[in-house]
Amino acid sequence: MEKDFEYVELFEIYKDLLTDKQRELFSSYYLFDLSLSEIADVEGGSRQSVYDAVKKVKIKLSEYEKILGVQEKTKRLEEVASLTKDENTARAIREIIER
Amino acid sequence: MEKDFEYVELFEIYKDLLTDKQRELFSSYYLFDLSLSEIADVEGGSRQSVYDAVKKVKIKLSEYEKILGVQEKTKRLEEVASLTKDENTARAIREIIER
Repeated sequence: MEKDFEYVELFEIYKDLLTDKQRELFSSYYLFDLSLSEIADVEGGSRQSVYDAVKKVKIKLSEYEKILGVQEKTKRLEEVASLTKDENTARAIREIIER
Repeated sequence: MEKDFEYVELFEIYKDLLTDKQRELFSSYYLFDLSLSEIADVEGGSRQSVYDAVKKVKIKLSEYEKILGVQEKTKRLEEVASLTKDENTARAIREIIER
């Protein structure tokens, strides 16, 4: 599995919908950049079981985005903020969408 | 339990994060306006068990809003759209936040 860091942004948005275990696993792999084998050594289980578990978290994150679209809406709002000449409005939009 | 219809808006936002059962229960009570006893008659179980289950769904919806804040952000963005004199920006914001 190539590490596709696009999931890091989805993780930042939806992490509190995950279980502790799922958060820990995702952080180990993507944020602390451990390998699947390293995680398997620490957590127990095989490299394959860690692979499957990480994949499951990624599917969850994609599902959340499909349902709620927070990432996509945020991007579109950033674009609106960058296009408007009304500076107060741009600032207001950015304040709302920033986490 | 008084029927507090403020949850209907949260339900519209977060319903696809609920289970089928939770969605069905919430819809019966809030959208089809059945009583707890009527739901208990249809679903089986007691009035109390239906009460508890509906309460659990409401807690879930509140948790989702606390984590993601989609309702609050939408309200704030509606306000920004209503205040700006830039009509294109107002329209763009409304298009993004409307479901």
